[in-house]
Amino acid sequence: MPQHRQLHLNLNIYGTGAHAAAWLWPGNDPQAVITTDYFVKLAQLAERGTFDAVFFADRPAFPENGAFRPFPSIEPTVLLAAIAAHTRHIGLLATASSSYNEPYNIARRYASLDLISGGRAGVNIVTSADSEAARNFGLGAPPAHADRYRRADEFAEVLKALWDSWSPGGIVADRSTGRYYDTDRIRPIDHHGEFFSVRGPLNVPPGPQGRPMIVQAGGSPAGRDLAAKHADAVFALATSIEEAREYALDLRERAVKHGRAAEDILIFPGLATIIGDTEAAARRRQEELADLVPIAQGVNYLSDLLQVDVGRFDLDKPLPETVSAPENGMTTFALNVIRKARENGLTIRQLIRAQNGGGSNHKTIVGTPEQIAAHITEWFGTGAVDGFNLMPDVLPSGLETFVEQVVPLLRRTGIFREHYEGGTLRENLGLSKPNSPQSDLKAS
Amino acid sequence: MPQHRQLHLNLNIYGTGAHAAAWLWPGNDPQAVITTDYFVKLAQLAERGTFDAVFFADRPAFPENGAFRPFPSIEPTVLLAAIAAHTRHIGLLATASSSYNEPYNIARRYASLDLISGGRAGVNIVTSADSEAARNFGLGAPPAHADRYRRADEFAEVLKALWDSWSPGGIVADRSTGRYYDTDRIRPIDHHGEFFSVRGPLNVPPGPQGRPMIVQAGGSPAGRDLAAKHADAVFALATSIEEAREYALDLRERAVKHGRAAEDILIFPGLATIIGDTEAAARRRQEELADLVPIAQGVNYLSDLLQVDVGRFDLDKPLPETVSAPENGMTTFALNVIRKARENGLTIRQLIRAQNGGGSNHKTIVGTPEQIAAHITEWFGTGAVDGFNLMPDVLPSGLETFVEQVVPLLRRTGIFREHYEGGTLRENLGLSKPNSPQSDLKAS
Repeated sequence: MPQHRQLHLNLNIYGTGAHAAAWLWPGNDPQAVITTDYFVKLAQLAERGTFDAVFFADRPAFPENGAFRPFPSIEPTVLLAAIAAHTRHIGLLATASSSYNEPYNIARRYASLDLISGGRAGVNIVTSADSEAARNFGLGAPPAHADRYRRADEFAEVLKALWDSWSPGGIVADRSTGRYYDTDRIRPIDHHGEFFSVRGPLNVPPGPQGRPMIVQAGGSPAGRDLAAKHADAVFALATSIEEAREYALDLRERAVKHGRAAEDILIFPGLATIIGDTEAAARRRQEELADLVPIAQGVNYLSDLLQVDVGRFDLDKPLPETVSAPENGMTTFALNVIRKARENGLTIRQLIRAQNGGGSNHKTIVGTPEQIAAHITEWFGTGAVDGFNLMPDVLPSGLETFVEQVVPLLRRTGIFREHYEGGTLRENLGLSKPNSPQSDLKAS
Repeated sequence: MPQHRQLHLNLNIYGTGAHAAAWLWPGNDPQAVITTDYFVKLAQLAERGTFDAVFFADRPAFPENGAFRPFPSIEPTVLLAAIAAHTRHIGLLATASSSYNEPYNIARRYASLDLISGGRAGVNIVTSADSEAARNFGLGAPPAHADRYRRADEFAEVLKALWDSWSPGGIVADRSTGRYYDTDRIRPIDHHGEFFSVRGPLNVPPGPQGRPMIVQAGGSPAGRDLAAKHADAVFALATSIEEAREYALDLRERAVKHGRAAEDILIFPGLATIIGDTEAAARRRQEELADLVPIAQGVNYLSDLLQVDVGRFDLDKPLPETVSAPENGMTTFALNVIRKARENGLTIRQLIRAQNGGGSNHKTIVGTPEQIAAHITEWFGTGAVDGFNLMPDVLPSGLETFVEQVVPLLRRTGIFREHYEGGTLRENLGLSKPNSPQSDLKAS
């Protein structure tokens, strides 16, 4: 393990790229996203760049307004299992919904992925605020915010208990007695809570990192508490160093309140990149991408974000004063978008363009490899972030440029690894291996 | 497609093999079952033998009395995704519980596996009669038999509807309009039933075989009806040609009642094999395996099957007259075991030995490659079976012998393929590709 603080990079693979028009980029094969080859190659490229992990966002629904861009389609644990077979070091993260899954099934699937990948798996727990998903699981609308988060808390509790239901040595395979399992080391968890009753134990032994990582990405107070209590890392939203500092302070305070050390939780804000050889070239790429976005895509996107039919407004005028941020999982972000539009007097059309047509919601840097590396180094230097959740505009080209041109600059500064030093995802992230079931139960 | 009837073979991979003592077989690595390498090599070996498919039984629980042998551990869709990455032709089948999963999640996972494997996936729907599983999903005991089967019927209905929710051409990726999906070809299913409300559509496009296969294995009247209505193939229990004939007649009658053609459903009885160069060598192998079974394993197995603590009986006396078959998913099989014990005057210890210590419940042939091939050819010739669900005693050795010595004999008779002729699992099985959503809805 290195002695000094190390930068961590996660690759967020969102279909053809973070930009809404990524699939329309010249030369891109828009059908690639329904093949594993495409994703395996991206993961291998990220592994060449010694990224800590790849991550797949996910949603168990076909989005109502989703006609204009590919969304996550192949179920991500199936995809990650295929990627595991073709990579050696890189971490394997994906989203699972705590609202529409049973914890035993998710604990088992990620434990399996962790086992077959040699300790590289992790799950990003989301509560699924969208109504399309709710309607695929017997509900007319998603459960109330507070209910979803209470369920997610209990869900994470059960995951950890199941992952810890085996002490080391659960498989004895003793030829002299004919005993395969030592059932004294594989114990029921006997969980009885508000949402779940789970006896356990899990039927999968732990892999070399003890248990899969837990990631969380919620920005609301309940989401932050969930992260502070259970997560090993968070995917955060921060568009300025000040925001990142405030977020880190708040999150780490919450972690300490839950009896954890402030540094037990890693913070990775999203970082969208549009890279060019010169700043002018980067801006040109941004403009070319913006030109490719169908206006109907941008209108759908804003309508979803603001929960109002933006198509009935004059697109060449500003958003009407009556439009406000809805109360849901995107409230904070929607408020920011509305504020940006009003402060800069943008028309709806200009606002759509400024939002990359509904591309990444995160901090976007448009610039040269040097500018990107400087930004990363500066933010990392503040101590408020431990790395970034990278969202290249277009895949694979945006990632290729990053790996070939930004990664070497980061390595030169000494904050980013030359090669993988750990054997597991937790080791590469500098996270401790969870303790035995007994001590874990005391800690939570 | 061949003009004459073709034999089909499925490899049932149950941990280290069908025999209860398989993991104790000299030279076997008992830890191999928690690695993907082991399973990938078995699937590659089966693919060399031009098997139609590999199959993983599964159960979402750690079995109460499971100390003495490895049981399915790695979650099977994760395992099949890894196998898909290392094979080209062989079908990929696994069990999923309709009682403890949401149909949207299972439809999506198997559709994903089907897509990434080029049309090789299928799901064996089980209703999970065991109480260990029930206790991992909020229940004290499994739901009543009739309730489980009504749910399974609706579950299969929803799977098929979701898989058919895309018409061909759902992805248009039209650069001129910026439309990625043609949402006229991706339609909600609006299912509202007793157990599920699922709006749909699925968020995964269909693979080249239209939709994943459905397999069923229930022997009860409700299980047979479920198979007759929804399954493309059944894993059956038949220990004599007469039983196989009766089963086929009954199942095909039920299929016709559900508006299907009698040949729309393939019948694969389980076939356990213990192979030797001579019949005496095969019998010796059987005895050596029986000697390896810890008596406690056999007692646990019989106790589970008969739902009575067999350990409190004198093992060197016959089963007490008071012991009868419990009413559950294993009733028919338990009745057969009790009848066999009583007809042959077996002590409990002898009965355990005769059951391979709790190995395969299915027809077991102990003999030479020629005897195995003759058995398969004879049964296939009756028309009552379309192939077999092969359960070698010990893996990989029992499969190696089968592929090297039995498969060539079967090929020589002309009933088994020399090489894969179809591009998908359905094509290799001679099953028709499901029609478009509209015509499918009419048929069901």
